Amino acid sequence: MTSDPIRLGVVGLGRAFMLMLPTFRADPRVALVAAAAPRAASRKAFEKEFGGYTYETIEDLCADTSVEAIYVATPHQMHRDHVVAAARAGKHILVDKPLAISLDDGTAMVKACRDAGVHLIVGPSHSFDGPVVQAKCLIDEGAIGAVHMINTWNFTDFLYRPRRLEELDTKQGGGVVFSQGAHQIDIVRLLAGGRGRNVTAMTGQWDPRRPTEGAYAALMSFESGAFAAFTYSGYAHFDSDEWMEWIGELGHLKDPAQYGGARRALATIASAREEAALKTARTFGAGAEPSMPDHHEHFGPIIVSGDRGDLRLTPQGVHVYGDEARTFHPAAPVDVPRSEVAKALFDAVRCGRSPAQTGAWGLASLEVCHAILQSAETGLPVNLRHQVSVTGEEGPDDRS
Amino acid sequence: MTSDPIRLGVVGLGRAFMLMLPTFRADPRVALVAAAAPRAASRKAFEKEFGGYTYETIEDLCADTSVEAIYVATPHQMHRDHVVAAARAGKHILVDKPLAISLDDGTAMVKACRDAGVHLIVGPSHSFDGPVVQAKCLIDEGAIGAVHMINTWNFTDFLYRPRRLEELDTKQGGGVVFSQGAHQIDIVRLLAGGRGRNVTAMTGQWDPRRPTEGAYAALMSFESGAFAAFTYSGYAHFDSDEWMEWIGELGHLKDPAQYGGARRALATIASAREEAALKTARTFGAGAEPSMPDHHEHFGPIIVSGDRGDLRLTPQGVHVYGDEARTFHPAAPVDVPRSEVAKALFDAVRCGRSPAQTGAWGLASLEVCHAILQSAETGLPVNLRHQVSVTGEEGPDDRS
Repeated sequence: MTSDPIRLGVVGLGRAFMLMLPTFRADPRVALVAAAAPRAASRKAFEKEFGGYTYETIEDLCADTSVEAIYVATPHQMHRDHVVAAARAGKHILVDKPLAISLDDGTAMVKACRDAGVHLIVGPSHSFDGPVVQAKCLIDEGAIGAVHMINTWNFTDFLYRPRRLEELDTKQGGGVVFSQGAHQIDIVRLLAGGRGRNVTAMTGQWDPRRPTEGAYAALMSFESGAFAAFTYSGYAHFDSDEWMEWIGELGHLKDPAQYGGARRALATIASAREEAALKTARTFGAGAEPSMPDHHEHFGPIIVSGDRGDLRLTPQGVHVYGDEARTFHPAAPVDVPRSEVAKALFDAVRCGRSPAQTGAWGLASLEVCHAILQSAETGLPVNLRHQVSVTGEEGPDDRS
Repeated sequence: MTSDPIRLGVVGLGRAFMLMLPTFRADPRVALVAAAAPRAASRKAFEKEFGGYTYETIEDLCADTSVEAIYVATPHQMHRDHVVAAARAGKHILVDKPLAISLDDGTAMVKACRDAGVHLIVGPSHSFDGPVVQAKCLIDEGAIGAVHMINTWNFTDFLYRPRRLEELDTKQGGGVVFSQGAHQIDIVRLLAGGRGRNVTAMTGQWDPRRPTEGAYAALMSFESGAFAAFTYSGYAHFDSDEWMEWIGELGHLKDPAQYGGARRALATIASAREEAALKTARTFGAGAEPSMPDHHEHFGPIIVSGDRGDLRLTPQGVHVYGDEARTFHPAAPVDVPRSEVAKALFDAVRCGRSPAQTGAWGLASLEVCHAILQSAETGLPVNLRHQVSVTGEEGPDDRS
């Protein structure tokens, strides 16, 4: 039946899965029916809550004929194997951003899904956030005319939250460029039409105890003629959520009095092993679950400069600054968090309508992550060759 | 006597002079003794208020032996002739930013002043603003360790205020890159140590009725290893003063209800001639004078990311975000607006202590303006060759 929920299996019951729990629990368009995870405790917790089947390996999950789509929520470095396995088994796929770390892996994943004729969606990313979707609609409706420039920046303590060792190793996809850049790039690309032309960037590795890129500033031009400037600092002491009405990335109200909490907590941890254990403690069945958010998620202040007006995104909605008047377009209340992701999966699998955030889209965003690192190293702009538009149209380089 | 006020002559009684009036009237370190201006009405107003001598030409002003320093407040394109004339007459010089438009002109001006042994100070610029000076002191005291990254942005309606034709012609120094970029570049250079390495930028010319660069986004690296990202839009509908507690650039409280005023006023103007006349009406003796500001001037939000903390500048002072605590360092109340500029002139002429903002400094900032335009055209980074440090030390290229 076209209105049946998507029968979803999940591989990986860690932090990413935890953050999707409120969606899986509440959105009628998806039904969790199976899971694969190495930790018995996680599997047991899954069975207890969702009553489906659980497996130790992705192969066993793929062999489950009751599963029609798989959410790949494992660490970056496992994405390729898990996505390719799922595609070969004919499952549609939702894979956590970033698509992969190497462009080769990403390309192979996109190809495997194309060959198998299954949908590959990269998400959740903050390009699915309610106000971002709203801003995109406003742009498409012509609210501010052509988009000329986008500025966005995010100052967080990302680098000082508990991390596994590979999260602090750029080669393994650690640092902010892959994990956090993927969000910013997805948002900027969505609002500017998708097809980037080139990227110039500078990155910072400022803390020898956490030897990876913790900050970057990037300039990106688009085929449309628009350009974007975006900055991320995961070393930040200033918290840019102050400019987002003290609403945090995940939509919860923040208490400014908790200043410096991440660094203080980290200072009490004795070793890398203990730190990794702390991160593991944030998996399903082990740690406390995040509470329901009151507001939309966000990824820092975003200003879109258009021909006849500007947009400013907040977790509450979108400000439209026109030639004559400013109006605020409130976002719909958050009923089910990240319902946009469930909708994208449902629309793709049941209705054949792909979202912008396809595998090819994720590959294009991944290309920008690499371009940021490469430009920072060479000091030169990097031309992009794997870009796709919001509707999936490929750029000149990819058509060859 | 070393405590006597500087006997200052001014050439140009237009908008720039008007904005310095509160300083000249109230700061005991400067005394206006003479002026040169083509308009009789302006000269008469000057004589009436200050009682000094007035002249039609710069030559006559230079011949006045009672004048020991000249404030060159004429349009950009006249700076070279006026500065060189003043230097040859042995006068110390305060020249409005930007130093000049062409690097040749700027170089000739610096040389003329060196040859004549007179001080050349480029100002006022927003690098003289109280909180910027305060931030620089905090950095020098080690409040946040080494500076790694600076982000600043300013969204204004600059392009829609009344303009003379040359202010809309890039070749004559029009657009935001020279006039507004000079402020941002001065601030960023002051806080990052002064000597830039290279610049990559994109610019926007989005309104064919005002055919000049109205926006840019730039990435700049410094010899120190720091980098900066700075954006300016003079097309903006969103006003970034919203993030500066609704205090405007010149330190006055703004009324958000006056939204869209500049564009509305401009729409009532019939011709370029009428528009230029409107700008002329803002000269001394003709138009209403700006009122005394209640707060420090500013140039938009500025975040300085350091090794052990961040700084955020506001018109009220500087927030210091450290590893453990955040503190706010209030700026001294504004007694005399722009007193920092008067102090710089006095310290140079009476005490031989040059400020950071010398002619060579202004030439280095001007070089960055040109680099922004050049990089936007070529799509490539532009290496800088005329950079000087805060203490006047020249970079490797200039030492040759």
